Amino acid sequence: SAMDVCLIQTLILFCSLICCFWADTPSNKSTPNIIIILMDDMGWGDLGVFGQPSKETPNLDSMAAQGMLFPNFYTANPLCSPSRASLLTGRLPVRNGFYTTNAHARNAYTPQEIVGGISRDEILLPQILKKKGYVNKIIGKWHLGHRAHHLPLEHGFDEWFGAPNCHFGPYNSSDRPNVPVYNNSQMVGRYYEEFGIDKKTGESNLTQIYLEEGLDFIFHQNMAQRPFFLYWAADATHAPVYASKRFLGKSQRGRYGDAVMELDYSVGQMLAWLRALGIDKDTFVFFTSDNGAAVMSGPKQSGSNGPFLCGKETTFEGGMREPAIAWWPGHIPAGTVSQQLGTVMDLFSTSLSVAGLSVPDDRLIDGLDLSPVLHNNTLINRPIFYYRGNEMMAVRVGPYKAHYWTWSNSWEEFNRGINFCPGQEVAGVTTHTQQEHTMQPLIFHLGRDPGEKYSISAVTKEYQDALSRITAVVEKHKKGLVPGVPQLNMCDMAVMNWAPPGCEKLGKCLKAPKSQPWKCDWPH
Amino acid sequence: SAMDVCLIQTLILFCSLICCFWADTPSNKSTPNIIIILMDDMGWGDLGVFGQPSKETPNLDSMAAQGMLFPNFYTANPLCSPSRASLLTGRLPVRNGFYTTNAHARNAYTPQEIVGGISRDEILLPQILKKKGYVNKIIGKWHLGHRAHHLPLEHGFDEWFGAPNCHFGPYNSSDRPNVPVYNNSQMVGRYYEEFGIDKKTGESNLTQIYLEEGLDFIFHQNMAQRPFFLYWAADATHAPVYASKRFLGKSQRGRYGDAVMELDYSVGQMLAWLRALGIDKDTFVFFTSDNGAAVMSGPKQSGSNGPFLCGKETTFEGGMREPAIAWWPGHIPAGTVSQQLGTVMDLFSTSLSVAGLSVPDDRLIDGLDLSPVLHNNTLINRPIFYYRGNEMMAVRVGPYKAHYWTWSNSWEEFNRGINFCPGQEVAGVTTHTQQEHTMQPLIFHLGRDPGEKYSISAVTKEYQDALSRITAVVEKHKKGLVPGVPQLNMCDMAVMNWAPPGCEKLGKCLKAPKSQPWKCDWPH
Repeated sequence: SAMDVCLIQTLILFCSLICCFWADTPSNKSTPNIIIILMDDMGWGDLGVFGQPSKETPNLDSMAAQGMLFPNFYTANPLCSPSRASLLTGRLPVRNGFYTTNAHARNAYTPQEIVGGISRDEILLPQILKKKGYVNKIIGKWHLGHRAHHLPLEHGFDEWFGAPNCHFGPYNSSDRPNVPVYNNSQMVGRYYEEFGIDKKTGESNLTQIYLEEGLDFIFHQNMAQRPFFLYWAADATHAPVYASKRFLGKSQRGRYGDAVMELDYSVGQMLAWLRALGIDKDTFVFFTSDNGAAVMSGPKQSGSNGPFLCGKETTFEGGMREPAIAWWPGHIPAGTVSQQLGTVMDLFSTSLSVAGLSVPDDRLIDGLDLSPVLHNNTLINRPIFYYRGNEMMAVRVGPYKAHYWTWSNSWEEFNRGINFCPGQEVAGVTTHTQQEHTMQPLIFHLGRDPGEKYSISAVTKEYQDALSRITAVVEKHKKGLVPGVPQLNMCDMAVMNWAPPGCEKLGKCLKAPKSQPWKCDWPH
Repeated sequence: SAMDVCLIQTLILFCSLICCFWADTPSNKSTPNIIIILMDDMGWGDLGVFGQPSKETPNLDSMAAQGMLFPNFYTANPLCSPSRASLLTGRLPVRNGFYTTNAHARNAYTPQEIVGGISRDEILLPQILKKKGYVNKIIGKWHLGHRAHHLPLEHGFDEWFGAPNCHFGPYNSSDRPNVPVYNNSQMVGRYYEEFGIDKKTGESNLTQIYLEEGLDFIFHQNMAQRPFFLYWAADATHAPVYASKRFLGKSQRGRYGDAVMELDYSVGQMLAWLRALGIDKDTFVFFTSDNGAAVMSGPKQSGSNGPFLCGKETTFEGGMREPAIAWWPGHIPAGTVSQQLGTVMDLFSTSLSVAGLSVPDDRLIDGLDLSPVLHNNTLINRPIFYYRGNEMMAVRVGPYKAHYWTWSNSWEEFNRGINFCPGQEVAGVTTHTQQEHTMQPLIFHLGRDPGEKYSISAVTKEYQDALSRITAVVEKHKKGLVPGVPQLNMCDMAVMNWAPPGCEKLGKCLKAPKSQPWKCDWPH
């Protein structure tokens, strides 16, 4: 049941006038609510506060002014599925299985023909939060596998409104079905069918639907006095980008900017809602993105990685550095900037800490508990690992980043016009063959050279000092690394979303072809 | 007489406690003070508020939060001298004579061997401000010619502390003298002699001296109840970059960042001083830079142009887009962002308007009066012209920028390792020959493509519509253009700073060689 925008506005106004009188507002609840807002392919440079020239994200900029900004925050992988798997497990893809061994250093994700998905052996954030009575909801894109046993409600979520795969399409339903939209464990329609996306005009109401689902969920959990975890994973900034009518044509940046404006608006609405309900001081909110802007999609379908090199699919800063803001009035000091190196995996450990829970002790967790950073702006020394598939391409220690392998994409792809680094070319760095530098890594100082343009000469003392610090970190990491079973190796047309649960009621079941699995081809 | 930092702090504290009781604070003075803070080679991306990842400019970020931010502000030329000539005359270099015709589309400036300088036929901002009793001071770099008749006190300034040329050096005093530092019309020493710059450690007290000069000037004019114009043109971010001991090694960005931190601190001190003296509401302050970051100088000696293409010397956005903040409590609404296209020449017209004065009516003025923008955040439709020497290389109308000529630098320079676009390469755009596109300009949409990476296909309606709008603007501009007499064509070793006024008293006069003028060679 969709509330319209005016109704939301009215409710917020109404609630801000009266809710505070009847809401129970303990400011030191032992089980604060947790909201993780995850953008899809949004780049570091897409927010005003991170230097987007159009400055069209007033709500996110306000969120930063009221919270803590993280200019050095990273994803665990420059592609959506493994990034999301890492966020929810607190572990690198090479550990949690969200990678491939079909070829060296290849990005893999969960298209409809993927056989695998998140393993039952992994422990997801909402599974642990349940111990303390949290009600867990995911809204939007799941992307950890679409076969029945991989879906969110099988992995700790209580509710779900959204889709298991990307909103690519439209498809003809014979070669390939349109991606289903689920309400909890039942399909309620498909993209391009019940849930329209006009690829020509870019119009779609999906973000509004996701926003309303979010506000509804918050409202009802608050009424029931239950702590909640909301994982709000809208996908309007992933190509094909879309926005609702109200936002189309409103940005100075074209359709991509329209989508950003609508998402910015949605974040503003959610924070206003928390305030109106009087639970802002009881709710830890974190905003970030799954990987860098997909600059290969061109200026109408992708965002900005600011001053950073390349974008999505690469282990350069443009592929891995993410916009990030933490917000929790009364707990996180307003208007602060943290230089802490953070990752999406820290959201696992930090959320558990916020809820008074511990991370699993039977496995290696890469995520860090950022609580000391959030509360006291302390700095914790920790490295960042940049993986592409099964290979550690680079590592950051302090301001130094060492590349052990460099690759943008293959000459074959590049010559077909697929460019992961448009307008950017650093000789010997943005290479089109997989270049090994393990004997003498390329080292950059990301403080004075955030764009990875000037590698430090290997004959300098600075290089030698940095390398010896980094080498120790890498050796420790490699020694402790037990790769997980790769879940993204096999594909099969038979496993696609032909007949998701609930299709019978809707008369939308399609017939699957015969199973013919093959080793997926991951070209980059 | 140098006050030290602690004394300044104490004075500010002291004054903030008591000055307000005895200071006369009319909030609608008819002759508000004017301060133009001009940075040297600082890039758009060097401020936290414009997305610098290190976020080390808290004072400038606060200035933006208390004032108006201009993400679309431009210089008139991607090199220091012509940019400064334009700021003070309100006219494009091709009109005010600060350009060369020695070769096509060459940047020219005022090295020590330049014969020319600012023409007596030009009317400078301080000359007009005098009509209303303003006391005018320049602190720092002049760069409009160093021969006696070109110096600041000959062109409307009442006071000067600083140098006529760049702080290159040290020189041996036989081939080339060290650049003099003036106090008003007399040399008081030379760089690398009385005014030290340690090129090895990067230590110099110059910014502190310039800050103290500024605070002193403000204090004394305020005591005397005289309206003042302060043009504060520090040069610590121009290579060789420098900082005082207190700031060296403090930045995450290396020595360049140290210089930025000291300048940011200085801006903060000046604004605090205005507040402490109770004249913040009577003082219009504008912060900007003379051209884009000099990225050819490498990561230790240059800054960031954020998401923009190339840097200083070029007419790409990285060479011409500048950080810009207007500040005037009680007059300019706090925390606003203006999408107005502005230029340094607007500071001429706007300052005159602020002082209740008119621009000269006997010549074409390129500067716009931004008062309606500052007070009401209105938008005025106006083009931006991108000149390199005698050639209009590009023009911006609305979000569209058309390149009529493209050039980074020559193959010869490029092959010697001089790179104006390190790490960036856009095929057919960052060209190493002067490429003419006048028959079919390259057009970019700077909203969705601020990095000028994706030129719009000439067969699209979007291209045709943009071109027809731009063509009308260009035709009008070219029709009305009467180029000024070029002042930067001739060079002569005899005109260098051998014996500046005051050298006798200091015993620092050097003997000039015989005059042998030649046509200066401007390689880029």
